[in-house]
Amino acid sequence: MHVMIIGAAGMIGRKLAERIAETGCIGGQIVCELTLVDVVEPDVAGGFDGMRKVLAADLSKPGVAARLVANRPDVIVHLAAVVSGEAEADLEKGYRINLDGTRALLEAIRSIEKYVPRVIYASSLAVFGAPFPSKIPDDYHLTPLTSYGTQKAIGELMLNDYSRRGLLDGVGIRFPTICIRPGVPNKAASGFFSGILREPLNGKEAVLPVDETVRHWFASPRSAVGYIEHAATMDTASLGAQRNMTMPGVSATVAEQIDALRLTAGDAAVALIRRAPDPDITSIVAGWPQDFDTARALKMGFRAEKSFREIIEVYLEDEMGTPAPSDGAPPQAPQHLRDAQDVTP
Amino acid sequence: MHVMIIGAAGMIGRKLAERIAETGCIGGQIVCELTLVDVVEPDVAGGFDGMRKVLAADLSKPGVAARLVANRPDVIVHLAAVVSGEAEADLEKGYRINLDGTRALLEAIRSIEKYVPRVIYASSLAVFGAPFPSKIPDDYHLTPLTSYGTQKAIGELMLNDYSRRGLLDGVGIRFPTICIRPGVPNKAASGFFSGILREPLNGKEAVLPVDETVRHWFASPRSAVGYIEHAATMDTASLGAQRNMTMPGVSATVAEQIDALRLTAGDAAVALIRRAPDPDITSIVAGWPQDFDTARALKMGFRAEKSFREIIEVYLEDEMGTPAPSDGAPPQAPQHLRDAQDVTP
Repeated sequence: MHVMIIGAAGMIGRKLAERIAETGCIGGQIVCELTLVDVVEPDVAGGFDGMRKVLAADLSKPGVAARLVANRPDVIVHLAAVVSGEAEADLEKGYRINLDGTRALLEAIRSIEKYVPRVIYASSLAVFGAPFPSKIPDDYHLTPLTSYGTQKAIGELMLNDYSRRGLLDGVGIRFPTICIRPGVPNKAASGFFSGILREPLNGKEAVLPVDETVRHWFASPRSAVGYIEHAATMDTASLGAQRNMTMPGVSATVAEQIDALRLTAGDAAVALIRRAPDPDITSIVAGWPQDFDTARALKMGFRAEKSFREIIEVYLEDEMGTPAPSDGAPPQAPQHLRDAQDVTP
Repeated sequence: MHVMIIGAAGMIGRKLAERIAETGCIGGQIVCELTLVDVVEPDVAGGFDGMRKVLAADLSKPGVAARLVANRPDVIVHLAAVVSGEAEADLEKGYRINLDGTRALLEAIRSIEKYVPRVIYASSLAVFGAPFPSKIPDDYHLTPLTSYGTQKAIGELMLNDYSRRGLLDGVGIRFPTICIRPGVPNKAASGFFSGILREPLNGKEAVLPVDETVRHWFASPRSAVGYIEHAATMDTASLGAQRNMTMPGVSATVAEQIDALRLTAGDAAVALIRRAPDPDITSIVAGWPQDFDTARALKMGFRAEKSFREIIEVYLEDEMGTPAPSDGAPPQAPQHLRDAQDVTP
């Protein structure tokens, strides 16, 4: 099986490539060829035994999409996108990358005869817009309130149309907010959801700009990769004409995030969270969804964590090298935090 | 006020132009300039006193949209589209005219500084797809099952996004099936809804290819023009970010259509309907919506007929020159039908 990841330099793309390199498989199928594409040349996935190609290419440029799909990958994972803030600041760039880029990919696939690849499309909760019901169902109307959400909703509609016409076999994945994101703090409005856990787990101070009552929808990077692995080989027949689904996740308040941190890493870690209310971020986050009914995705076999504690444990295992204990007990926080906790009365 | 109609050679565009020529107004505002655009040169609107321009232009061709909006029309009525059957048969043409053409118009408007025209966008019930609730609300999810519906839904999303960003002031109108369409029978799957009334009213036989229990959503051509007139000058502030609405109409079965025909034109007219069940048309129409909750559009001041009898009366008045009686009684059917009826025992 030949897998192509477009947007392979991003966090999820990189982790997916590493996972394929490590297992040699995707969704139970052997991967003999892996093509990694991004606007900058993505990292090679070390340790992969099959054929591997790394390409720097911009999908929205003329001819690029056709070149990419010319050797007919079986699974195309389309993660390439301009993110929310940038799509709002730069209308032209957002529509060019998120709409034209996606359409160019679908059209390039269409132009090849008898070629119907599985296309996994990274969509977003941003296709929905406030006001929301307490739990947002899969069939809630598309009312994006950002250009990014608009472009993602348009991509969903095209994915449905091209799939319905038998031109490709699409699965659209609406990712929860991924938490805990590894790496350094970023400027994204959602950055604090990861920051208030990641920074304390690494012994650093983190800023909390919103109230602890704020509720949102989360899954780990490991789950994000898991959605794609499942989507790569799932039976799509029962999806019918509606190819896009909100992925399962954990609905949690900031207070619940902090409680989970306390259970895992103790009060010393929690003490590293500094409250610094930010009206701008508070106002942005107030428009975000809080909870979803993902019965459809669950029925289709997609899985995620069941609690925020699990999400933190995934971070400890995958990013801090703390192995899961064999007795099924949760992994422990890093030594420096346990040391700090030991001296706390 | 300068009004531009793009797609002015179509049935609704032509009627709208005639109406503006006749009244000199749109939505209570004086029209001093009228620009009519279509891929073929549209008919001039006779009798219009203001400045009038007629242009043959394809919105999806490079530079055309910019030329059209260069002298800043206050109201742009965008009716230009490839219809359902053609968009399904020719994917490229459908996306080019219905998606690229609409986007070119929005982009051309955006490129002019300090220019925020009212843009009235012709959308469609086809943005919705089965399965349907018994009455489809305005916030039902967008699940088109045709490429035409997909393209119209994408246009709705872009209209919302460009309006939200203050680049234009959009109103999206989801037209009911327009009935009774004047003119000759056409090959559209929906053609019989008009045909079974129009042909008998003109003394001709009509074919009914579906069961009488089939229910659908209708309004007259006069209402279609009325929606646009209202949308041209309505206060859009209360629309917020959701600029698209299903227009009010009449939900009626074929049996109810025929009853209304009987009441207006008698048994002789009804006898001209020949049953010829067509499995293909029956199957297409089975996927169509039957009834809508249009509370939002009604609240915004949009109006339509309240019964099928009214829809037939509009046809008699507007297309057959039968004036409405001054006593408020319905207009009578044409003489030849009344003659025929007189000889029926």
